[in-house]
Amino acid sequence: MVVGEFAEQRELIVIGGGPGGYHAAIRAAQLGNQVTLVEQDQLGGTCLHKGCIPSKIFTHVASKWHQTQQLSAFGISTGDLSLDMQELMAYKNSTIEQLCKGIEKLCQANRVEIVRGKANFINEHKLGVETEHQFTLFTFQHAIIATGSYPVLPENLKNNPFVWTEETIFTLHEIPKDLIVCGRDYIALEVAFSYRKLGAEVTIIIPEQADFPFDKAINRELKRMLKKEKIQLYRENKIKNITAIDGEVCVRISSNDQEISLTGTHLYMETEHKPNIESLGIDRIGMIYSEAGFIKVDNEMRTNIPSIFAIGNVTGDRLSAVIAMKQGKVAAEFIAGVASEIDTTMMPTVVHSIPPIAVVGLTEEEAIRQGYEVRTSQFGYSGNSYALIGKEKNGVTKIVKDAKTDLLLGFHVIGFGAIELISTGVTALELVARDEDLAFPFYPHPSFNETFLEAAEGLTNRAIHMKPS
Amino acid sequence: MVVGEFAEQRELIVIGGGPGGYHAAIRAAQLGNQVTLVEQDQLGGTCLHKGCIPSKIFTHVASKWHQTQQLSAFGISTGDLSLDMQELMAYKNSTIEQLCKGIEKLCQANRVEIVRGKANFINEHKLGVETEHQFTLFTFQHAIIATGSYPVLPENLKNNPFVWTEETIFTLHEIPKDLIVCGRDYIALEVAFSYRKLGAEVTIIIPEQADFPFDKAINRELKRMLKKEKIQLYRENKIKNITAIDGEVCVRISSNDQEISLTGTHLYMETEHKPNIESLGIDRIGMIYSEAGFIKVDNEMRTNIPSIFAIGNVTGDRLSAVIAMKQGKVAAEFIAGVASEIDTTMMPTVVHSIPPIAVVGLTEEEAIRQGYEVRTSQFGYSGNSYALIGKEKNGVTKIVKDAKTDLLLGFHVIGFGAIELISTGVTALELVARDEDLAFPFYPHPSFNETFLEAAEGLTNRAIHMKPS
Repeated sequence: MVVGEFAEQRELIVIGGGPGGYHAAIRAAQLGNQVTLVEQDQLGGTCLHKGCIPSKIFTHVASKWHQTQQLSAFGISTGDLSLDMQELMAYKNSTIEQLCKGIEKLCQANRVEIVRGKANFINEHKLGVETEHQFTLFTFQHAIIATGSYPVLPENLKNNPFVWTEETIFTLHEIPKDLIVCGRDYIALEVAFSYRKLGAEVTIIIPEQADFPFDKAINRELKRMLKKEKIQLYRENKIKNITAIDGEVCVRISSNDQEISLTGTHLYMETEHKPNIESLGIDRIGMIYSEAGFIKVDNEMRTNIPSIFAIGNVTGDRLSAVIAMKQGKVAAEFIAGVASEIDTTMMPTVVHSIPPIAVVGLTEEEAIRQGYEVRTSQFGYSGNSYALIGKEKNGVTKIVKDAKTDLLLGFHVIGFGAIELISTGVTALELVARDEDLAFPFYPHPSFNETFLEAAEGLTNRAIHMKPS
Repeated sequence: MVVGEFAEQRELIVIGGGPGGYHAAIRAAQLGNQVTLVEQDQLGGTCLHKGCIPSKIFTHVASKWHQTQQLSAFGISTGDLSLDMQELMAYKNSTIEQLCKGIEKLCQANRVEIVRGKANFINEHKLGVETEHQFTLFTFQHAIIATGSYPVLPENLKNNPFVWTEETIFTLHEIPKDLIVCGRDYIALEVAFSYRKLGAEVTIIIPEQADFPFDKAINRELKRMLKKEKIQLYRENKIKNITAIDGEVCVRISSNDQEISLTGTHLYMETEHKPNIESLGIDRIGMIYSEAGFIKVDNEMRTNIPSIFAIGNVTGDRLSAVIAMKQGKVAAEFIAGVASEIDTTMMPTVVHSIPPIAVVGLTEEEAIRQGYEVRTSQFGYSGNSYALIGKEKNGVTKIVKDAKTDLLLGFHVIGFGAIELISTGVTALELVARDEDLAFPFYPHPSFNETFLEAAEGLTNRAIHMKPS
């Protein structure tokens, strides 16, 4: 190893080239900063290599599979469907590679210097980057830590060959025969729906007192969909134990005071995350952590060390590339002296289930809890002519408003088109819309968009396609 | 025929049960009116039986066909695709029947009386309804004429067995072998794309000096798509003549000073429309018409006769079920004494082409013409990671703003998801949004929605995934 004698001077060093990191780097470069991006592995981070993108490839293929199964209703016959996992994996890998190269090109176009290696802080204005053969010292005016997080299984499940997390489940080279999913977040649902659609037997286990994390109208429709897909749903007090029997995994749960044994070929576990900070050397410079062990930041993404910022999963915020990207921009803007802020209250959540779910703002329950005089309206896809045309009648669009002010508080959609449509809700909330602002404009006909019109009109009993109550 | 001796008394009579008429009837009933809806044929009108719905059934099937053809890229293999036109027609008819029944049930639920027959005005407060066996007289406080319009072919093309209009082209029981499309509106494009996708050879002829009716960025991408689909595009001065030769139709055009003969098995013609007023008897009560012969109305849908309103295509407005539905509500509200208005400037236009087109507000050219200091930004689907995942990289999202005020003026999208996404643009325009209002919020990742974020950020050179200029 060669240790550089002189420290190279840099303005801004971003550590970690995931979505948060490269957004920070490019935004900083746009604002005139000279930027160095340090990445020890591949650009794109967990999101591109083990998270959002691989999962969307599977959900996309599952959704296509679903749609192809519907074709006979329209007079299209296809012959038998079959899935070649090797081709699917090749497609997955080439897509990821292409996106990865795209990030590199964007960095180059923005004159972001990319340094490969492991970063290690020496003091609050100096860090070293270590590669196999070299150790380079850099000084910096500002640094942004964007090193992400990693999933942590309970001690007794580590190294269990039956147990898969969100980072490993989409690396399978076969469709599981019997998949048990422990979890209720968007990834758990995407795992359940996509593998079910592609042929797996699927069971979901969620905590006994909990439901899925959506508005009750969405939860109800979602559970109807699970039933329709023959995905078994169990609520448990506590997983008693997980054992391997005859090459299968056996999960013993207690549900409704009964002991139930579920066996499967694969077990997916929703996990907690820990920050990637172990080798960063930030203890030695006095970094302050949150109670959960993540880097503590304020609304401008500043840590307790004035020259160092942190963004994304390393700060322990909601596991989300979308938030990381925004935080990256905010940190870069703040460093460049541009006023910037982040407000995650109007962050949409989407699930690429079949049909998809997309929600933003307050659920009915949350709005009541916050003291609003709540009025809601929901319109089923079964009353929507475009859904009828496409034979996709499962779904519901629900809008929550404050009856005192008519201000809209939340949008909740399960159904085809939900993901594209949710930006209408986001825009409406951002612009502090009232129900009239959604009821007045025009919606294409026939379209899924019209479920928004009907739900908005329903808030004042004016929906044309709802029966009068 | 039995002529009723006494006139039955009604509050509001709506004539015509198309989208405009039944929306008017139901909204009026919601507002407490006692409503009678007169329909001489089937509820749902042209839109349901010969327009929007049949065309969307074809575009939907064509889009599914397209998607199925892409499946091998994801490792899904199907046998040979085939289309059974009889099954497609059965599906079309059952869908229409179901929607038709739905309207009837909604009318019943709202206690809208449905009277079958042909309406004929006696005076400005009285009309007769004639069925095969009966003639019933009604008096009314208000009437709404919603009888629609019909396509008119040039004299020399009437009764030509090769010539098809938007009302007949989707009744074909076979896929045309060689289809010539004369037209450039959304229906012409839907006809061209859907039949091409399902196997027809397709040629489009548009006027020499004209382009497609969208922003130039959309027109450019659209023409690239036509080329890719091997749909021939010709610009002509004038169709010289149309003749039948050996069981085919021959269209002689003059294009770039050359005489070209195009032959085909089917010729689709974009048509002008005339109002359905001939048997209404409204001449005798002194109805005033527009120059083009449609019923003249003001912004509240009032005709020159205080008790009579008119809505939809019979008023000669843009051929559109969406406008008719809104006009129906406006007329009903005005009659019930509720303030109401219609403003069609922010009416989205959508085309179910492959990929679809959806636009709202001003094009760049229109904005310049109106004197704005125009700034635009566009983001190609090729830079969008969700488009890459789905291998649907054709498309572009363009936003037009006024650089002086930062107010957004127009949204123009060609690409998958465009139709659902356009409501974001409509909502933004409705709420008088600035570019920052679209750049600030969160967009799901990965998603087509992000093309809106990038285009909005591009308006201030901040798009992360655009190379710096």
